[in-house]
Amino acid sequence: CGQLRLYAGMLTDGSWVDARIDHADPARQPLAKPDTRSMLRPVGPVVVFGASNFPMAYSTAGGDTASALAAGCPVIVKAHPAHPGTAELVAGAVLAAAARTGMPDGVFSMLYDAGHEVGQALVIHPRVKAVGFTGSRAGGRALMDLAAARPDPIPIFAEMSSVNPVFLLPGALAERGEKIAAGLAASVTMGVGQFCTNPGLVIVDRSSDTAVFREELTKLISAAAPGVMLTAGICRNYALGRGRLGALPGVTKLGAAPETGGNHGSPAVYAVDAATVLGSDAYTEEIFGPSTLLITADGPAEMLALAESFEGQLTATVHGTAADLAGAAELLTMLEQRAGRLVCNGFPTGVEVNHSIVHGGPYPATSDGRSTSVGAGAILRFVRPVCWQDFPDAALPAELQEANPLGLARTLNGRRA
Amino acid sequence: CGQLRLYAGMLTDGSWVDARIDHADPARQPLAKPDTRSMLRPVGPVVVFGASNFPMAYSTAGGDTASALAAGCPVIVKAHPAHPGTAELVAGAVLAAAARTGMPDGVFSMLYDAGHEVGQALVIHPRVKAVGFTGSRAGGRALMDLAAARPDPIPIFAEMSSVNPVFLLPGALAERGEKIAAGLAASVTMGVGQFCTNPGLVIVDRSSDTAVFREELTKLISAAAPGVMLTAGICRNYALGRGRLGALPGVTKLGAAPETGGNHGSPAVYAVDAATVLGSDAYTEEIFGPSTLLITADGPAEMLALAESFEGQLTATVHGTAADLAGAAELLTMLEQRAGRLVCNGFPTGVEVNHSIVHGGPYPATSDGRSTSVGAGAILRFVRPVCWQDFPDAALPAELQEANPLGLARTLNGRRA
Repeated sequence: CGQLRLYAGMLTDGSWVDARIDHADPARQPLAKPDTRSMLRPVGPVVVFGASNFPMAYSTAGGDTASALAAGCPVIVKAHPAHPGTAELVAGAVLAAAARTGMPDGVFSMLYDAGHEVGQALVIHPRVKAVGFTGSRAGGRALMDLAAARPDPIPIFAEMSSVNPVFLLPGALAERGEKIAAGLAASVTMGVGQFCTNPGLVIVDRSSDTAVFREELTKLISAAAPGVMLTAGICRNYALGRGRLGALPGVTKLGAAPETGGNHGSPAVYAVDAATVLGSDAYTEEIFGPSTLLITADGPAEMLALAESFEGQLTATVHGTAADLAGAAELLTMLEQRAGRLVCNGFPTGVEVNHSIVHGGPYPATSDGRSTSVGAGAILRFVRPVCWQDFPDAALPAELQEANPLGLARTLNGRRA
Repeated sequence: CGQLRLYAGMLTDGSWVDARIDHADPARQPLAKPDTRSMLRPVGPVVVFGASNFPMAYSTAGGDTASALAAGCPVIVKAHPAHPGTAELVAGAVLAAAARTGMPDGVFSMLYDAGHEVGQALVIHPRVKAVGFTGSRAGGRALMDLAAARPDPIPIFAEMSSVNPVFLLPGALAERGEKIAAGLAASVTMGVGQFCTNPGLVIVDRSSDTAVFREELTKLISAAAPGVMLTAGICRNYALGRGRLGALPGVTKLGAAPETGGNHGSPAVYAVDAATVLGSDAYTEEIFGPSTLLITADGPAEMLALAESFEGQLTATVHGTAADLAGAAELLTMLEQRAGRLVCNGFPTGVEVNHSIVHGGPYPATSDGRSTSVGAGAILRFVRPVCWQDFPDAALPAELQEANPLGLARTLNGRRA
């Protein structure tokens, strides 16, 4: 909804197409300079795979659909089998709106399939020019591989997997350990932990005063109410993930809410040493649900080594006083290379929809760390620049005509005007 | 060189990083609004494969290297075996410049290999984060497949193959057939045809007055001087390509310059009917060298069908009078979907280096039709957006600090300021 409002504003203004004009200079030596004009144009039909965990914001008429339509691309949605009824209601509303606003037939369509056949057929269809996906790492990678193996490979924007590490620096822990624990517990358990920005790893320095924080976090997580998860499959995978993590060498269960059955996910918090984590990838795999792993490092160097060892993330968070942050330049630089969004003294859940947000990050957070699936930048996934050279004004798109009939902000001979 | 000048201007100004700031609003309901700030940051080490046909502009210190360095990425060049001496001289100059300007060690390096081993090792190296390539379709696709099969796939920007169709509309042919023939012959034979924007296909309408044009083109191509090609391999492939095309059913040789041996490429012009071309991909394969194929279509509908049948191109050109262009809206729309740059009443060879140029196009012209390898936009291949949320000013990059110490043009709460 925020995404739709944002795009409505961008489309009304129109300047997002990045119109650029360089005027001719027939007298230039040794060669005459041509007139060149460029703008962003839609890539073509986009296939959108809705997410299971956001039946509204990231499914049939979610961010991917909104940004592809805003770019000018027709959209074919593969409905998520977790909520076919919601998908159908939303698709009906989209089709009604398309009819009412005189959009061309086929600007939006939706297909159902509980298996993989329809989705795979869509990704390899010659007319499809890009793909948006939100879901599991295995599912996203399978679609990436399909798209890359096409006779004409197409870009795929898959948002897949993130454990969203939270680094708690000593000054902040000493100053407000209890408050950080409360915020963290709320972030871990929000929506029964089913957010892609759920904080799955928390890193503290052994030398810091962690007792109050650890005790409070354990108490809050153990007392948190289990909640019904979105699907039986998600709940089963959550239990399996917790079981795997709990059984790994060196892992202690600090606390957990009681198991209440019935597709409920019970919040839990585990602990392990950084040295153990550095020896294996198994500790940092995403567990989709309300659990988190507290990692204790031996000083700043080991915290830095941990950050370096992490795969690409949607977010990385640091809690620190001004003095903490001033001493953590290396850590912040490393996290910048690992994540699309850095959060300071807050929590990663909750994604603001605006012009500066980045909801993306290096693989496996997404398939292409150069993209964002939320905010103004999300449109850019589905456009390509096209240049017109020496065209008469009448044959140019209005956005590039000399008199600027649409009143856009444009780049004229290298200067924004 | 144009690219270096362009980037020097962009880096001095600094605004290309697209700094965006959305201020906090703690009073917002139902949730407080955070402060978010984003800018473009380098992706990491970039591997550049130099082109054989541009020992300066598209090799060791060419456009890919310049744009990756401008983005802030270290560059590792795989020297092209066609010109190892030139590569070494240029690399020495780059290293001397890096030392003189106090760049970090490793900001630039170069490796040699006449085979594929070094290049492949570079593309799959875990520290490498993007690849730039200019070369053959087979070579580019092999690297695309390698990059896509990595445990962490990385973006690859390969510029590979383009036959650059030129559509000659009836009014233009009647008005200045002889002049168009002269311009086309010069474009086909320029640099012994070894430009990626060489016009390999020319499409005319059977009903139009093509006699003068055809006669003049045949005369000029037959009289053009053969030239020494860049390597023996390129010359051999050119001869093979011409042989293949000449032997295809329905193809007539209109004329050719004499064969003069010694790695010379002889200009040649062939002709065929559109209906024949529409039946097979063999007629529109790139022949790297000074030859072109004249395709005669039965009216605008068949010209449009041809345009639709073409693969992705770096350029598409149309010659037309104002009346021609007014009647060719469908053709222009189709060409926009097939090419990165549309040229009107000119020729595709010669690529302007500026803020609005696009040297890219849908596959197989490039691996990612959303990119350009020339001009201001070329930097964007090697950056990713990063967002800082709720950071104190002192911990932010200067580009995002509240007081705007670098004096950049930025986007403030959605408005360019």
